[in-house]
Amino acid sequence: MVVVFEIPRGTRDFPPNEMHKRRYVESLFRRVFESYDYREIQTPTFEQLELFTAKSGESVLDEIYEFKDKGDRHLALRPELTAPVMRMYVDQMQMEPKPLKLFYFGNCYRYDRPQKGRYREFLQAGCELIGSNKPEAIAELISLSMDMLHTIGLSHVELDVGNLKLLSMVFDELSLTKEQRQDLLPSIDKEEFDEVEDVLYQWELDSSKIVDFITLLKDRKSELLFELLSNQDQSVDEIKRLQQIIDLLKNHFSIESVKLNMGIVRGLDYYTGTVFEVKAPALGAEKQICGGGEYNLIGLFGGREMPTSGFALGFDRTLLAMDEEELSFPQQTLDYYIIPITEDMIPFSFEIASVLRRTHHCSCDVDLLRRGIGKALKYASSRHSLVAILIGPDELKEDVLTLRNMKSGEQKQVSIDEFKNNPDIM
Amino acid sequence: MVVVFEIPRGTRDFPPNEMHKRRYVESLFRRVFESYDYREIQTPTFEQLELFTAKSGESVLDEIYEFKDKGDRHLALRPELTAPVMRMYVDQMQMEPKPLKLFYFGNCYRYDRPQKGRYREFLQAGCELIGSNKPEAIAELISLSMDMLHTIGLSHVELDVGNLKLLSMVFDELSLTKEQRQDLLPSIDKEEFDEVEDVLYQWELDSSKIVDFITLLKDRKSELLFELLSNQDQSVDEIKRLQQIIDLLKNHFSIESVKLNMGIVRGLDYYTGTVFEVKAPALGAEKQICGGGEYNLIGLFGGREMPTSGFALGFDRTLLAMDEEELSFPQQTLDYYIIPITEDMIPFSFEIASVLRRTHHCSCDVDLLRRGIGKALKYASSRHSLVAILIGPDELKEDVLTLRNMKSGEQKQVSIDEFKNNPDIM
Repeated sequence: MVVVFEIPRGTRDFPPNEMHKRRYVESLFRRVFESYDYREIQTPTFEQLELFTAKSGESVLDEIYEFKDKGDRHLALRPELTAPVMRMYVDQMQMEPKPLKLFYFGNCYRYDRPQKGRYREFLQAGCELIGSNKPEAIAELISLSMDMLHTIGLSHVELDVGNLKLLSMVFDELSLTKEQRQDLLPSIDKEEFDEVEDVLYQWELDSSKIVDFITLLKDRKSELLFELLSNQDQSVDEIKRLQQIIDLLKNHFSIESVKLNMGIVRGLDYYTGTVFEVKAPALGAEKQICGGGEYNLIGLFGGREMPTSGFALGFDRTLLAMDEEELSFPQQTLDYYIIPITEDMIPFSFEIASVLRRTHHCSCDVDLLRRGIGKALKYASSRHSLVAILIGPDELKEDVLTLRNMKSGEQKQVSIDEFKNNPDIM
Repeated sequence: MVVVFEIPRGTRDFPPNEMHKRRYVESLFRRVFESYDYREIQTPTFEQLELFTAKSGESVLDEIYEFKDKGDRHLALRPELTAPVMRMYVDQMQMEPKPLKLFYFGNCYRYDRPQKGRYREFLQAGCELIGSNKPEAIAELISLSMDMLHTIGLSHVELDVGNLKLLSMVFDELSLTKEQRQDLLPSIDKEEFDEVEDVLYQWELDSSKIVDFITLLKDRKSELLFELLSNQDQSVDEIKRLQQIIDLLKNHFSIESVKLNMGIVRGLDYYTGTVFEVKAPALGAEKQICGGGEYNLIGLFGGREMPTSGFALGFDRTLLAMDEEELSFPQQTLDYYIIPITEDMIPFSFEIASVLRRTHHCSCDVDLLRRGIGKALKYASSRHSLVAILIGPDELKEDVLTLRNMKSGEQKQVSIDEFKNNPDIM
């Protein structure tokens, strides 16, 4: 019975051209991670479901792929990578020298309505820094994310830095209840500050503080935090730390676009201090391509408390941002295409191919369909071959090969022995 | 509430050292694939369950991770990659110039009893050749698998080549019923040829043919096929084709270990001609590290019939075989470790780090814990750092850096400007 099978909704096949782009970006990302001395790790594609509900609450269940295995274990395809990495850290890496710098690439899964920039299976690049919360450590982490994006050529990206510990203190200062905070967060996140202002007035809070808070959100000046939080002594150090981080980023890591944004909310329970987001404005609604900050999970997962921070970078949105900026990728070419002119030349053609592949690490293809020269050359062109090698009985008699430059059409004969020792991409 | 979460049974975390090995092997494999002009593709981690039952029958259900998504679609984590790749081919690649050479790396999933070399999530490297069944095309495919294993340094691997079309003809010649064939396959697969012989005598078949068949299995000489199948005219071309493939492999692809093995059974329905297996005998029961051959799925999946062949190489068993041969991997080192001697040197230290990372593509770390020199150097050693850079107020006053060779302990001072232009790994 013949059935045409469909790809599952929200997932993608990557043909060679796209895969080539993805591996190119991945290899540049890897190089930048390694230049910062981060080391790669990997965790399983699925975990116990409870790992994710413990981190993010029951609300993740709405979007998670979950199932029971044949041993009745409740498992979930990972919706994100920080929880698995922290589980692994608690499991086997607590004794490692600190700080520990870890990075990873991994597919994640969310049962979400598919749209541009949102897929049900998507690739994340991310990292975790375990063991230091010094301002320079956080600044270096943030700088790493920007370096990754600059290395692949993106120029229109913006960095916002906020702080959730301080935002909580501001909420305390405004005397907001827990429910009020929750109500307010979505509007703050969407930068609908006029609506935030209206709501705060409706709740009849101290109007001078409302003015200060809205000014803080809009004007992005950290000095306002000192005024707003002047009653809270423990805020002083954290404000100074935030200022140090922004100063390091702007003046010593050369990231001129960095701005304070006290409207970054992310997860109030999960993040504990500095938070940051990188946006590619050209992407519209799905413009956030990277986000992270300082968080706390190790204790919750049964490990010894340790300052942690990290970020996740959406690989698919990053590629969309590259398309928006019309960035080019290196063309994949084939070094040699070998055409045996007669069938008895086939074995010798593969011997030449083996020398090129094994000794010289060239890419090389041999016509596998016993085609005529014209058709074989046409196929060689479709494979972006640089040089075609024609091998026929006349050539073999004289110990030569015919090389054809596929761009210019120029042909020349070279001695077989010389070519084997020193192949020549015309 | 604190819970210590466990990794799902049969799955693994890969810490940095192991991940470094895996990426090293992957990059060598990728280079070999590309040297044969194969191009990488990727398909989703899960597919419609029916894709796999259509290919392999209902028996795959015993080992498959299957679940319903929130839209009530019956999905499965892929147990293998050929079916997804063929689905993708039918979907979007039928019009591509032939032959089409595709490779992939992908995790696969089987609910199996975990043991050494068998995991519930495991990585496969594989490829498919679409559009040619010429003997040289099949020989090149098989040679590719051997080249991959030789490139990573494995020397104790053996190549067996068989043919399922001819095995079926031999079964016809023996007048075996369908049930008898099924009964016989496991013993043939395990190379228990004496037991095969006993069973055939029990079934009271033509005893001269039994002798020929058992000799064929044991002696591995293709000439015996001509005798056994002398009544079947259409066998002649296929036997010659098999002989050509083995001759090409031995004499033109320099694979001396190649042997005919008419006992390779794999799947009689799925494979249609040549089959092959690569074994690493040191691995014992789990010694098969690669297997493949000519198969037929495109028609079943609704595409236009086209000769196809391919193989899958078990990444995890390959690494085990490398361990058995005690092969070494390149050590991951860190180029520079920068130690700011006083806190006010921190910003400048990161400026030097940025130059090394961004301009010179070196790997570089800065002490993120404001440690004393002794502790910082100890950490630098643990990171396999080649050179430590000490930056203090005295140095800065004289526009120099102190470089310390981490192996010899030798120290010297260099001008900051010179170092920035031309960093020196002592």
